[in-house]
Amino acid sequence: MDIQTVNDMNYEAFLDNFGNIIEKCPLVAAAVWSKLPFSSLHEMEECVYEFIDSLPPSGKEGILRCHPDLAGRELASGSLTMESQKEQRQAGLTSLSTEEREQLGLLNFQYKTKFAFPFVICAKMSDKDKILQEISRRLRNDPSQELLKGIEEVKKICHLRVQDILSKGLPTKL
Amino acid sequence: MDIQTVNDMNYEAFLDNFGNIIEKCPLVAAAVWSKLPFSSLHEMEECVYEFIDSLPPSGKEGILRCHPDLAGRELASGSLTMESQKEQRQAGLTSLSTEEREQLGLLNFQYKTKFAFPFVICAKMSDKDKILQEISRRLRNDPSQELLKGIEEVKKICHLRVQDILSKGLPTKL
Repeated sequence: MDIQTVNDMNYEAFLDNFGNIIEKCPLVAAAVWSKLPFSSLHEMEECVYEFIDSLPPSGKEGILRCHPDLAGRELASGSLTMESQKEQRQAGLTSLSTEEREQLGLLNFQYKTKFAFPFVICAKMSDKDKILQEISRRLRNDPSQELLKGIEEVKKICHLRVQDILSKGLPTKL
Repeated sequence: MDIQTVNDMNYEAFLDNFGNIIEKCPLVAAAVWSKLPFSSLHEMEECVYEFIDSLPPSGKEGILRCHPDLAGRELASGSLTMESQKEQRQAGLTSLSTEEREQLGLLNFQYKTKFAFPFVICAKMSDKDKILQEISRRLRNDPSQELLKGIEEVKKICHLRVQDILSKGLPTKL
């Protein structure tokens, strides 16, 4: 899929294809469609990041809160988005031992208790051991630092989701 | 459900209950949770409206674009959110004649072509005849006027969704 194909999309086609590049926040892609045409896919991503950066802290926290826990209740109940399911599986989170799952569950709980949003990490660029190390390390950050770090990870996830959509070639439901 | 029950919710419970008061935009409720505690449910709604008003025009357009067409493809394919399904049914949009459906389909298309977002109206406070009248009338507005009007309707829908949740009594999944 090239930039011309993207620029030719009406907002419904754009949302069908890019609606979940920010987890459960189609609002972001729907807002960014207003900025069409883009000169490159890089520019499209920059518009997404700019929109997120322009939100007040509560809005950035809101974006993080739309993300599922890693190996949490949505994975257990099968209610993850297709994208999260794939990312958590690739990071090995669908095949944790009981001990690892309990350890991650406890760390998720401690993290959410401290920060009031879930631990977000680009799982696709990580694996279960690194994830356990990172959540333990980031638990020591202060809240404003951790909000920025979480949003950085959201952007990495977005970039890989865009790449994944593009690699499929043809856009869906045009 | 009283305000104390709402104030006692962690963000996950809050999202389980209020995540879709703005159609397909859990980000809004997730952001507003940062403002807890509220002195009243009215104050909670005011926070939602304030967050929406603080968005740039592209963000407001984004909110409208997360709404389905009335009697459109999501209704036909059964992929509406539970709330939209109920609202469209109550407004009589699930029992249109072929002629009415075609007429509304054409008006939806003209509206989206002119404004680049879908026609949004608080269907629960309307019926199929009024909806057909309103979309024809509003098609003559200019884009900035119509963006404001659409967002006003989003707020009315939000208010009725909150009322509906409260009338159920006990919060879900607490």
